[in-house]
Amino acid sequence: MTEFIPQGTRFHALPSPFPMKRGGELRNARMAYETWGTLTPARDNAVLILTGLSPNAHAAKNAANAEPGWWEDMVGPGKPIDTDRWFVICTNSLGSCKGSTGPASLNPDTNERYGLAFPELAVEDGANAAYEVVKGLGIDSLACVIGNSMGGMVALAYLLLHPNSARAHINISGSARALPFSIAIRSLQREAIRLDPKWNHGDYDDDVYPEAGMRMARKLGVITYRSALEWDGRFGRVRLESDDRDDDEPFGLEFQVESYLEGHARRFVRSFDPNCYLYLSRSMDWFDLAEYGDGNVDAGLGRITVERALAIGVETDILFPLQQQEQVAEGLRAAGAQAEFLPLPSPQGHDAFLVDIARFGPAVSEFLARL
Amino acid sequence: MTEFIPQGTRFHALPSPFPMKRGGELRNARMAYETWGTLTPARDNAVLILTGLSPNAHAAKNAANAEPGWWEDMVGPGKPIDTDRWFVICTNSLGSCKGSTGPASLNPDTNERYGLAFPELAVEDGANAAYEVVKGLGIDSLACVIGNSMGGMVALAYLLLHPNSARAHINISGSARALPFSIAIRSLQREAIRLDPKWNHGDYDDDVYPEAGMRMARKLGVITYRSALEWDGRFGRVRLESDDRDDDEPFGLEFQVESYLEGHARRFVRSFDPNCYLYLSRSMDWFDLAEYGDGNVDAGLGRITVERALAIGVETDILFPLQQQEQVAEGLRAAGAQAEFLPLPSPQGHDAFLVDIARFGPAVSEFLARL
Repeated sequence: MTEFIPQGTRFHALPSPFPMKRGGELRNARMAYETWGTLTPARDNAVLILTGLSPNAHAAKNAANAEPGWWEDMVGPGKPIDTDRWFVICTNSLGSCKGSTGPASLNPDTNERYGLAFPELAVEDGANAAYEVVKGLGIDSLACVIGNSMGGMVALAYLLLHPNSARAHINISGSARALPFSIAIRSLQREAIRLDPKWNHGDYDDDVYPEAGMRMARKLGVITYRSALEWDGRFGRVRLESDDRDDDEPFGLEFQVESYLEGHARRFVRSFDPNCYLYLSRSMDWFDLAEYGDGNVDAGLGRITVERALAIGVETDILFPLQQQEQVAEGLRAAGAQAEFLPLPSPQGHDAFLVDIARFGPAVSEFLARL
Repeated sequence: MTEFIPQGTRFHALPSPFPMKRGGELRNARMAYETWGTLTPARDNAVLILTGLSPNAHAAKNAANAEPGWWEDMVGPGKPIDTDRWFVICTNSLGSCKGSTGPASLNPDTNERYGLAFPELAVEDGANAAYEVVKGLGIDSLACVIGNSMGGMVALAYLLLHPNSARAHINISGSARALPFSIAIRSLQREAIRLDPKWNHGDYDDDVYPEAGMRMARKLGVITYRSALEWDGRFGRVRLESDDRDDDEPFGLEFQVESYLEGHARRFVRSFDPNCYLYLSRSMDWFDLAEYGDGNVDAGLGRITVERALAIGVETDILFPLQQQEQVAEGLRAAGAQAEFLPLPSPQGHDAFLVDIARFGPAVSEFLARL
């Protein structure tokens, strides 16, 4: 799986053993991360970025890796997350296959890949692991923790489990708990992988690999990451050129939107480990801050202490709908934070933060400028 | 497949050969239908119901079959579609497996099931076949044609291809063309079936049957037929009782919403023919009234002549979004109809017309009362 790790990625060894929330522990585990900018002598200008399910730690180009990153237009000198001012850290999620320890890593007990022997993964484990990276960099208090999508869940867990670990928080298209529509979507994605005979209960290799299941899971993901509105304008009912169609394939691709999904799936299926996908996906379903609030999610949010917060959401997001970011903002405000809720009219749905930089850039940069 | 045909279903033999829009023809084909109420001597009180993808012709109980139908609360004496006043006809779709000729029927050329030898199916073929049933009952002009979901497409094709065949129209959660989000969803459902090795290019039987593919397709359907809002209230994050869980199954069912999807899938997979599903699904993607309007969908709607029309949609419908019913109403109004658009705040999404009778019932009954 080494090919999944971007050049120049750095590693932080987690305490060993590293206990996991739902039982079990990891030994000799590590977190992958990258940094941008310079930490001040007072160590007070650090910003942590926590990612969605699939990104690696390479958010933007830096000294170690000149390739553009997955948030290139947001992170860099003079950009919304301005690395002339901030020391920016981005971690690869615990449980991922892009440098951090996960189900695709070698199990030190057996010297074989963990597969399903990896302990159950919770969002909180990811938060604790990211906290260790920050601590390892000598930072007691982050200026801001930014979390996108799943990373928005991880950020809330980070703030709750580690009081006073950050002074500000930006929650982007995240939520304080998983709701049934998104659980249903993720459950179906996992089922697509599990039903693929080549998944083989997690015991596959590059030759016998659950490609069909991963393809379905990814296509369903892309459908729910975007919005009908965007696709109406982008694809309409445009058909593929006849050269791009296989007319001998019954019910084969005919419309541009089908080919777009196919392209996304092809790029993804061999670049993300299926077991890692299953573990991270399930961790989101389990996440519920109500566990920390006697069954009440607002009470859970009420246990988070942070000075300032911004929760940004998008009207066309069907996976983490706007009400969930509003709930985060209101919950943190009730807990004493100066918290804002910013709904954006981006047409791009859940993924808007990756592409609608014209809207997300100013929102993030203005918030950070006021810190 | 006889078990899919409700007791008491009637049949109408289609003209043989029956030409198909995209080429080819059917021989000895038939349509399944049921009726309720009494046709007036003037034959002027007939209402035709055109269904969504999967229903049979048994919309409600009648003299031939006392079992409740799929629209039981809408059709009957004193009900919104009042069979004391109207002579109601419901057809099973051409291409379905519930009595009308489709890919699961015997091909008279081979005496084996058609499978993929069935000619390509268009929404317009379904409209022409339903028209033959109505004509066969001696009815020149329907009082109203009602179409739900896919049936809303079939109804528009019916009206366009057969001028003056109906005086009024109710379009329920339908559309004048397929848009890319719904095409993407349906394409993925078809891919789930096609990727199942047991589909075997359409050549399966009851022993070797693409159950896994049908399960995935149905679950994805149910997810998009409902809404996040409804499921928040209905399932929340409630977990299954431990007796209902298989803890030895990795990533197995844990939340009520997952078990709900599983139940829907189990009931569906063996009760609808996979090839019929593929054909009907694809016919919806192809549907576009712009074909009849020099590439402009409003111009296509403009070719329909009907006196009165009502297009009903639901705010939470992500598959046939509200704007599509608005487009139908505006297009028919521009063409001279007295047409209304009625957006309903039902939380149940695309399927609301099946369950939210409290809202749909009065809307339909008031429109019909004014005819």
